[in-house]
Amino acid sequence: MRNTNRQWRLKRFPDGLPSEDDWALVEGAIPEPGEAEFLVRAIYLSVDPYMRGRISPQQNYAAGVGLDDVMQGGAVGEIVRSNHPDFAVGELVENIGFGWQDFAVLGAPGTTKVDPALGPISAYLSYLGMPGLTAYFGITEVGQVKPGDTVVISAASGAVGQVAGQVALALGGHPIAVAGTDEKLAWCRELGYEAGINHATTPDLVAALAETCPNGIDVYFDNTAGPIHDAVMQNLALNARIIICGLISQAATFGQPDIGARYLRNLLVARARMQGMLVFDWADRYETARAQLAAWAKAGTLRHREDVLVGIEHMPEAFLRLLTGRNFGKQLVQVAEPPAGAT
Amino acid sequence: MRNTNRQWRLKRFPDGLPSEDDWALVEGAIPEPGEAEFLVRAIYLSVDPYMRGRISPQQNYAAGVGLDDVMQGGAVGEIVRSNHPDFAVGELVENIGFGWQDFAVLGAPGTTKVDPALGPISAYLSYLGMPGLTAYFGITEVGQVKPGDTVVISAASGAVGQVAGQVALALGGHPIAVAGTDEKLAWCRELGYEAGINHATTPDLVAALAETCPNGIDVYFDNTAGPIHDAVMQNLALNARIIICGLISQAATFGQPDIGARYLRNLLVARARMQGMLVFDWADRYETARAQLAAWAKAGTLRHREDVLVGIEHMPEAFLRLLTGRNFGKQLVQVAEPPAGAT
Repeated sequence: MRNTNRQWRLKRFPDGLPSEDDWALVEGAIPEPGEAEFLVRAIYLSVDPYMRGRISPQQNYAAGVGLDDVMQGGAVGEIVRSNHPDFAVGELVENIGFGWQDFAVLGAPGTTKVDPALGPISAYLSYLGMPGLTAYFGITEVGQVKPGDTVVISAASGAVGQVAGQVALALGGHPIAVAGTDEKLAWCRELGYEAGINHATTPDLVAALAETCPNGIDVYFDNTAGPIHDAVMQNLALNARIIICGLISQAATFGQPDIGARYLRNLLVARARMQGMLVFDWADRYETARAQLAAWAKAGTLRHREDVLVGIEHMPEAFLRLLTGRNFGKQLVQVAEPPAGAT
Repeated sequence: MRNTNRQWRLKRFPDGLPSEDDWALVEGAIPEPGEAEFLVRAIYLSVDPYMRGRISPQQNYAAGVGLDDVMQGGAVGEIVRSNHPDFAVGELVENIGFGWQDFAVLGAPGTTKVDPALGPISAYLSYLGMPGLTAYFGITEVGQVKPGDTVVISAASGAVGQVAGQVALALGGHPIAVAGTDEKLAWCRELGYEAGINHATTPDLVAALAETCPNGIDVYFDNTAGPIHDAVMQNLALNARIIICGLISQAATFGQPDIGARYLRNLLVARARMQGMLVFDWADRYETARAQLAAWAKAGTLRHREDVLVGIEHMPEAFLRLLTGRNFGKQLVQVAEPPAGAT
């Protein structure tokens, strides 16, 4: 086991798209757990779009990262020292407050025990974790997908999108993928998406969606905002539901106003509902949802794809890949080997 | 009784704000009711913001008025001839499909019998009719106002707004008025609105709302879109609900894209819900809602104000007053005397 702790610390607030030198990798001592705490060694670190909002001085839904703070982020790791009676050395845990580092001292709040029987341990950062739960509650609770609904999903092969499409399908919906490469779309079709639109090469998204969804769009799972959102708003079915989950198309202009056409009249005419969501609001139902997702995965109904870089030095690079759509599937960074027996 | 029927017919589709010569007043024969039909003489004709959408070739939630068609609109009137066993001569009725004319042949579908015991007969075009029901279902079903909620209402003294504010108050909410003159705001305060903001004279609506609603806005009843909407979106409380009911600020630019700042990030951060509504979707519950509104009015909990012009020749003028905010309260045109005994 390593005898130092490497940490990515924020050096400056990026203006628009971050660059790798907005963070610095520093090496220091491994911290000691206090009373009712435990020390966790990271195995997989997660990068997620929400992190862009954490490195802005602007208001967001969670407190941001300050200058010289360790960058925020979730991880799956192994307990290597423990002063907590309920958390034993050797147990695997997930915590969204881990940080971009090798080791973190954690407590019980916010820590989820990883059950390797439910799936690969990295799945606690993808389809059994925050992105998968976001997709699950977004489709079921906010989108309220019913059999026969046409469900358009942007960033359809991403960590959230890939699960959202398959949950929509499991509920009897007709998922339509929007993604930025033909390879991503081909894989979405394998997952069961009924059609796909490449937003990078389609000149008229409004017309393409109208052709693909001739009866209008009942549910839109919006991971991107931007031009895909705009095109969907011009193709709403009566009583459409729009799940505002992510705004990754705006990563390069973060903090600047998003100027463009507004669609209140479309909302009115369609009597549609647009709702912002954050998965934490369903925390008391994670366990049930995770059991359902794991059952679907075991049955082959839910498949998933990860994009794994190896080595903590790749964290900013992994994050930038994600913000610019160069990842393919859930973006992870593996920083240590899983313990024997776990995958 | 008149022996001719005057009708306002559409002469051209207006570009932006209509002008009076977009319609022509023509005089013709009084039509004869067919089987299961009845002839109604108008007493009050209604003008409502939705009518702007009906005189556009653009898609809307209802079929539009064609060139040379009678202009669409609701009325309260008296049955003067009847071939329908359930509708007797002398009965008062309301029908949104009446048209801007003295006489209309109607059938049972869409016709509501006016019960003069519930309130003044013109109220079937205001607080007991479409605007009042819109306010009622908007506040209760879409806004889901709870005790303690801060409820901002634009066009607060208008036909919908005045009822919305008082329904919000009856449910324990704190209604805040936004209107375009100090006289309108003073009257809103009399109705029980807790504060008022004059959007025509307030230089910084974002700051004014922040000061008036220090804990954020829980519910926004949006009758206007435009700058008031924009300012509200920057002051949302967690889990805010935004009722998209009207877009009257855009009457002068109808049919053109509404370009400006977009607020998806605000929706996301606040986990807020924005929903377009149309009162017809609650038609099966009108009777109960109307009984509640009438009861509130009799108890003095619900007061209302009308702005009545006299003479069918004033229809386009009345509509333009409404679109430009020069009306004060529900805009009506009285075209005949009520029968003896009715008010």
